[in-house]
Amino acid sequence: MILASPQARPALTDLDALPFDFASVRAALADGADPVALALEAHRRAAAVAGDSVFTALVPEGTVRARAEEAAARARAGDALPLLGLTFAVKDNIHVAGMTTTSNCPVLALDPGAGSPLIGVLERAGAVLIGKNTMDQFATGLNGTRSPEPLCRNAVNPAYIPGGSSSGSAVAVARDVVSFSLGSDTGGSGRVPAACNGVVGLKPTLGLVSTQGLVYNSRFLDCVPVFTKRVADAAEILRAIAGFDPVDPWSRRDADAIDLTSTPPDAGARIAVPRRDQLRFFGDAAAEAAHDANLGTLRALGFDLVEIDFATFEEAGRLVFQSALVAERLVDYGEVFANRPEGVHPAVRASIEPGLAYSARDAFEAIYRMRELARAAEIALAGFAALVTPTVPTIFTIDELLAEPMARNTVMGTYTYYVNPMNLCAASVPGARRADGLPSAISVVGLAAADGRIIGLAERFEKRLTEAG
Amino acid sequence: MILASPQARPALTDLDALPFDFASVRAALADGADPVALALEAHRRAAAVAGDSVFTALVPEGTVRARAEEAAARARAGDALPLLGLTFAVKDNIHVAGMTTTSNCPVLALDPGAGSPLIGVLERAGAVLIGKNTMDQFATGLNGTRSPEPLCRNAVNPAYIPGGSSSGSAVAVARDVVSFSLGSDTGGSGRVPAACNGVVGLKPTLGLVSTQGLVYNSRFLDCVPVFTKRVADAAEILRAIAGFDPVDPWSRRDADAIDLTSTPPDAGARIAVPRRDQLRFFGDAAAEAAHDANLGTLRALGFDLVEIDFATFEEAGRLVFQSALVAERLVDYGEVFANRPEGVHPAVRASIEPGLAYSARDAFEAIYRMRELARAAEIALAGFAALVTPTVPTIFTIDELLAEPMARNTVMGTYTYYVNPMNLCAASVPGARRADGLPSAISVVGLAAADGRIIGLAERFEKRLTEAG
Repeated sequence: MILASPQARPALTDLDALPFDFASVRAALADGADPVALALEAHRRAAAVAGDSVFTALVPEGTVRARAEEAAARARAGDALPLLGLTFAVKDNIHVAGMTTTSNCPVLALDPGAGSPLIGVLERAGAVLIGKNTMDQFATGLNGTRSPEPLCRNAVNPAYIPGGSSSGSAVAVARDVVSFSLGSDTGGSGRVPAACNGVVGLKPTLGLVSTQGLVYNSRFLDCVPVFTKRVADAAEILRAIAGFDPVDPWSRRDADAIDLTSTPPDAGARIAVPRRDQLRFFGDAAAEAAHDANLGTLRALGFDLVEIDFATFEEAGRLVFQSALVAERLVDYGEVFANRPEGVHPAVRASIEPGLAYSARDAFEAIYRMRELARAAEIALAGFAALVTPTVPTIFTIDELLAEPMARNTVMGTYTYYVNPMNLCAASVPGARRADGLPSAISVVGLAAADGRIIGLAERFEKRLTEAG
Repeated sequence: MILASPQARPALTDLDALPFDFASVRAALADGADPVALALEAHRRAAAVAGDSVFTALVPEGTVRARAEEAAARARAGDALPLLGLTFAVKDNIHVAGMTTTSNCPVLALDPGAGSPLIGVLERAGAVLIGKNTMDQFATGLNGTRSPEPLCRNAVNPAYIPGGSSSGSAVAVARDVVSFSLGSDTGGSGRVPAACNGVVGLKPTLGLVSTQGLVYNSRFLDCVPVFTKRVADAAEILRAIAGFDPVDPWSRRDADAIDLTSTPPDAGARIAVPRRDQLRFFGDAAAEAAHDANLGTLRALGFDLVEIDFATFEEAGRLVFQSALVAERLVDYGEVFANRPEGVHPAVRASIEPGLAYSARDAFEAIYRMRELARAAEIALAGFAALVTPTVPTIFTIDELLAEPMARNTVMGTYTYYVNPMNLCAASVPGARRADGLPSAISVVGLAAADGRIIGLAERFEKRLTEAG
């Protein structure tokens, strides 16, 4: 009977081949596609990848249908629903009312309470939640293998890691299961998996998007990134979810005043890049060649690439796991560590356990250094439209990563760890295809509140590649 | 020969009876007083109180003369020197080039390096530094007795404590030795001694005034307050020293944009006061009666006093010494604690030593709670022009304080501890004279960046008292 309802009738468009980037979805809607059918198609795709560990849990099909029908009814009644027809997923460390939160640690099983306020914002705008994504447990990892079996795999080549910690969130977009997803980013979790799977990862300025309802790694460093196929799509979602949240003590008071309009720098603008001898690809010639091509694209756009000393940025990056800042993770995870150690992934334990040894004085000294380095970044990047680096220096196979799970995880953060301790914003945007078919990506990095400029530069880079492509 | 120079000739004014508030000094200048003679008179007064432990060190007389002569010469050459003729002192935890910094712990003896940038700002504006003030050792105390003998005494009644930790800075102004002084304020050190000695203590928004060159208690909480006789004088000095300092990682980026113009709220504005049953005077009926009179003065100005729940503010106050935040003090003092324990005052040791036991996780949890309570203050004070409390609940005699040095020190912070953890600004302004002749004071407290409004309200209160008085 439900199938026979007018809302659920098959659309004219051939939905099962429809790409889920925003433009394609909106073209289909304009062509008469039913938003309820779009949501159900996303749910079908999510169910189809059930064996691939992209999701930890799906919203029940009936709920997806009911919510899509409600949105469609509101749209017919004249409500402006800017995200109508779009489907999304969220990382399983973001609380969603009615779904147990696990952070990919099943013994954690947290009550989500009212959930993140972002879910309601997106739903009111017409988007439909499909499920919760796998991740490196406790969002502690940049590779995607710190997870119960079976492992989530790279969307482009399943022999490779998907990157982490927001692995499922990036793969769900890359495999066209949903139109967008939300992750979390402490040391690169919103950018590394975007780079590994060939999608966009937009990591906003700290405090720009509410982190209420997040299982925290670090209240100092955590933020909510957006994964999409296209830069403009991520920017649109960021504009929908950004804003001051009086209930989140880490929300920026000026969040509503930050301009998120895409504002590309003029041709001729100076872009900082790490000094050539400081760029590290760990022997990955294909990654290096792709990065050279990406820098060539920026030059072709008329930008003036200027080498700067990357050492200060590397020092800031080391704070994330090689200082007392790691003890922040014990605030939300300390009890499961102490009481349910069998549920904690060995690599996650090895990453977080050093936090137990730090004193309060150590914590304050690490915070002081973080503040100093954030100020150093402001000085180093003054006069530059952005800093551009690779997002990842290489992409390991799953076997390679598991052979050296700690050291190679750290390698993945070479170009991402420093961003949050220095209070910067960043977008990872796909670059030239590597010779081996894997994706490459650049990170476009800006000072706090420069999100609009970062978006604009990322868009120009993306457009040039598409035109060239 | 120097005495015969024209700059040093005795002024027409009778300098040895001149009050040093800004208006009196400027009237004397207008009347022909020599700024060099004014500086030398301040130095004479400072030397005269040498036995009273108001100063830890004086600038040599010859240096005072040379600097005053240089300022006078610049003024004659046409430079605008807004602070010409004014003299000042700074607490001995503020570095001054060429003077050893002790924080009133002689074994500490720190090299001041280039010193606080505030000194140069004030000197360029024509003010002349006279000396460095005694304090509760390591700025850890609110009473003034945590100091080598002889103890600094209350300027109004020497049987009583001067309050701390900026004891000498407040007494030097109260006893008319200098026109203004700078202190430090973590938990009330810029307000308690102002209240005890009947002067103004203006504690700016955190990050508004550079803390570069300060021996820190707490980078999260420290700021530089101003002591003067009159509110307008303190506001003038604040305007001179406020501003963004790129070298201080705790400087507010918007410091230059904060309006410090005196902006009193309109008559009829709502002022928050603690619920009557939450006000504590520890049996001091004279303090309670004076506070009632002070509230009456505010009502007479037309303000609408509205009782609010003070419990959240009290919780925030406890963070300063009853949480892992106390471990911040070990960053600057840990080495002297470990290596020169004989140089540390027992009460200071007892206050700071608990910091050794806190873990990094404890530190992060305390910071999180501090952030939450700062947000709670924003919500509690929304719609109010200010919060008004007594500055101190009572004033102990030195003997009373020494009989219970820990508990009675804590009593002194009843109405000041919470201000910095909640990211508030405050002015302590003298109120009605108590029946026993001691001063009373109110604290006018506002949200971050509301300094101009706090100044304006404090000025209106002061004016009404002066007119009535």
